[in-house]
Amino acid sequence: MAEQTFDLIVVGGGPGGYVAAIRAAQLKMSVALVERAELGGICLNWGCIPTKALLRASEINHTLHTLDAYGFAADNIRFDFAKVVKRSRAVAGQLSGGVKHLLKKNKITVFDGHAKLAGAGKLTVTKDGKPVADLAAKHIILATGARARVIPGIEPDGKLIWSYREAMVPTAMPKSLIVIGSGAIGAEFASFYRNMGAEVTLVEVMDRILPVEDAEISAFVQKAFEKQGMKILVNAKVQGVRKEGDALTAIIETAKGVTEIKADRLISAVGIVGNVEDLGLEGTKVEVERTHVKIDAMGRTGEPGVYAIGDLTGAPWLAHKASHEGVMTVEAIAGLHPHAMDALNIPGCTYCRPQVASVGLTEAAAKTAGHEVRVGRFPFIGNGKAIAMGEPEGFVKTVFDAKTGELLGAHMVGPEVTEMIQGYAIARTLETTEADLMHTVFPHPTVSEAMHESVLDAYGRVIHI
Amino acid sequence: MAEQTFDLIVVGGGPGGYVAAIRAAQLKMSVALVERAELGGICLNWGCIPTKALLRASEINHTLHTLDAYGFAADNIRFDFAKVVKRSRAVAGQLSGGVKHLLKKNKITVFDGHAKLAGAGKLTVTKDGKPVADLAAKHIILATGARARVIPGIEPDGKLIWSYREAMVPTAMPKSLIVIGSGAIGAEFASFYRNMGAEVTLVEVMDRILPVEDAEISAFVQKAFEKQGMKILVNAKVQGVRKEGDALTAIIETAKGVTEIKADRLISAVGIVGNVEDLGLEGTKVEVERTHVKIDAMGRTGEPGVYAIGDLTGAPWLAHKASHEGVMTVEAIAGLHPHAMDALNIPGCTYCRPQVASVGLTEAAAKTAGHEVRVGRFPFIGNGKAIAMGEPEGFVKTVFDAKTGELLGAHMVGPEVTEMIQGYAIARTLETTEADLMHTVFPHPTVSEAMHESVLDAYGRVIHI
Repeated sequence: MAEQTFDLIVVGGGPGGYVAAIRAAQLKMSVALVERAELGGICLNWGCIPTKALLRASEINHTLHTLDAYGFAADNIRFDFAKVVKRSRAVAGQLSGGVKHLLKKNKITVFDGHAKLAGAGKLTVTKDGKPVADLAAKHIILATGARARVIPGIEPDGKLIWSYREAMVPTAMPKSLIVIGSGAIGAEFASFYRNMGAEVTLVEVMDRILPVEDAEISAFVQKAFEKQGMKILVNAKVQGVRKEGDALTAIIETAKGVTEIKADRLISAVGIVGNVEDLGLEGTKVEVERTHVKIDAMGRTGEPGVYAIGDLTGAPWLAHKASHEGVMTVEAIAGLHPHAMDALNIPGCTYCRPQVASVGLTEAAAKTAGHEVRVGRFPFIGNGKAIAMGEPEGFVKTVFDAKTGELLGAHMVGPEVTEMIQGYAIARTLETTEADLMHTVFPHPTVSEAMHESVLDAYGRVIHI
Repeated sequence: MAEQTFDLIVVGGGPGGYVAAIRAAQLKMSVALVERAELGGICLNWGCIPTKALLRASEINHTLHTLDAYGFAADNIRFDFAKVVKRSRAVAGQLSGGVKHLLKKNKITVFDGHAKLAGAGKLTVTKDGKPVADLAAKHIILATGARARVIPGIEPDGKLIWSYREAMVPTAMPKSLIVIGSGAIGAEFASFYRNMGAEVTLVEVMDRILPVEDAEISAFVQKAFEKQGMKILVNAKVQGVRKEGDALTAIIETAKGVTEIKADRLISAVGIVGNVEDLGLEGTKVEVERTHVKIDAMGRTGEPGVYAIGDLTGAPWLAHKASHEGVMTVEAIAGLHPHAMDALNIPGCTYCRPQVASVGLTEAAAKTAGHEVRVGRFPFIGNGKAIAMGEPEGFVKTVFDAKTGELLGAHMVGPEVTEMIQGYAIARTLETTEADLMHTVFPHPTVSEAMHESVLDAYGRVIHI
């Protein structure tokens, strides 16, 4: 097979990979992209995007069941679960198609298959074991992503035990559901299914749900979930599962002893492992640590000419981290000297109801890091727009360095906070102090005014509480 | 009557006034506040807040009529217009009550009545012409706000012709409606009533609706309104109105000649005049220009010890401008040397559907000001979250100085843009360049990613179009 040579080969067509490829094309490189599954990766096809379509459905369902408060009414309110799922798939399909179009528009050569390193600057591509192409490039970016971690004894079986994949394309609405793991993925599915009417038990091994968030946020979400009728077990470990026909029983170890919970289905969302297998890393200087590829600040692995970005390189497993790394790595390859990314400036969003968004250090992490802190809080019940919209649940918490006034972290739970957090991300990127944020005029009436008031509160100047 | 002396007297209990009073109390001043109508002013009682409750209703109505796209259904969808209005009033009442509570908590003495300057550092308060109190203070802040401008011949009569007040408390849903003036207030009412089912004609004397917004935004909103079935007349002037029983006919002069439009009701939203009357300004050095009080950068009028803030001082007539001026003026009085406010850093929001938000210079204004510009655009149809939410209408436009990279202006139309604009307001306050914004990591999947892409587009680096 004749070897095809490019300036850059990207392995993996998720957000990290395809963004890297497009940025390279903008910089006049000839680019190949190899993807073994769907363009757009997990994010577009099985993650961020279709779950947001599901979230929309659960929001609509919530609205439909609170109509009276707004002066509306309707009879025989119902949903067609298959149609809800179909819309989510259609959205994923539309966006995956969009990526295909973008790659074509940018004249990127796409190979459908599995790529494997084959010596310095070389790759082989195979599909179902058969050779597809031999490729060569001075620069190779690995962006193969990650997948759900599987607990022995609780392997997804596609029927009773689901990973995020099966959870996204259920054929029927389960009456009851156990979700193991309360990170972003677990919390989103638990929230979606609860809002659509399922009995949901959320099981977390740590002492609180959403354990990477600020402790006050975790506590608020737990209360909100419980108010919505969700059952939550923390400090709880699933020992095993007993399948019983079309249902199952989970055996759960808690501080109070072992308890058994029966449910129709179980979603396992207990962690992420990198897709490092069968990439031909053996014999190279690429270092792998706990299923993730080690990189420096510009995406370089230990092997000259081989780079890695995104989920493959470890936490946080977020699409926007991957795509930002993709741009940065390509620009470094092109000799453009991009800024390195500060992990503390990567915002995180959880699309449950109420929504959660944060950037920077939690209060506890700030203290552990040695900061003397000033903390501000503002509840949405003090915000006119939130009240007017009928969504006054939640709050904003800001953490400042008491000595310098640096915004160390911002944590939000409530309406539209996932759209608002970018303001704090801009602020952190610009190394903002409390004075700059106070001086900013936030428009009225918006929920975002609570971002301002939380800053004012940290300095004894809050107005509306 | 014994004279009561304070460190500061604030005349007017709207957002500018009550925020100024609270800030002064925080700075240990003894403060009196005089309000002749409702605490919270027009904003809380007859403006921003109750209209957002109405907007929520129109959004719900829209959702209810697009259920099928999301896999939902309901029969006999209906609303009780009186209940919709009642909820809006309840929200206003709750917030006005909240202001009362805040003033009490901050130990601010509230007088219910009309205040009039009575010589240096003195004020009289009357209620229905009867004396209530004689007050004295070294510093007096006038925050009496503004009201709708009335066109002769089209005076609100509370029945057929409405100002914003009557438009907010209709006793029945009009079948057809003419709205004169397509600034924020006119556009919001036109959008609300159209979304609730009324036939709406929007009449604008300028050559485009929302004339203070960027021309591309105006054009987009006009198309969106027309798609929703609204009739729009630009370059059109209402010559007069003929009342006919329970309906009216407006005589409208357009480029194509005079046309007559019949409707049940007419809303006049053609401008704002300051409440400068009967404040005792005669004989003082307070200067009034076209119904507005002239001030310097720190709220000082020509009369020593007399300050003015908010709508009373002129455009933009926005609550957040008023409250920011309130804080600034009080801090200047206290000798704290606050930053002056840059009018170009005051964001503006219009809560129609689609929503509009902007900050800084329009493209045309930037060119007029002598800037060579670089312009970026990003449509929401290229944004995954907007598609997933089923709201891919709209775009983000950013205007940069081509030489310095300064963000001169940002203009948005579409889902949740009113909550997103604060990010650009923070950016402008921090004198951000394109490089800082590009370097910021915007979370995925959010509509706010379009803010990032619009910046990238201005510099030939956009990814998703």
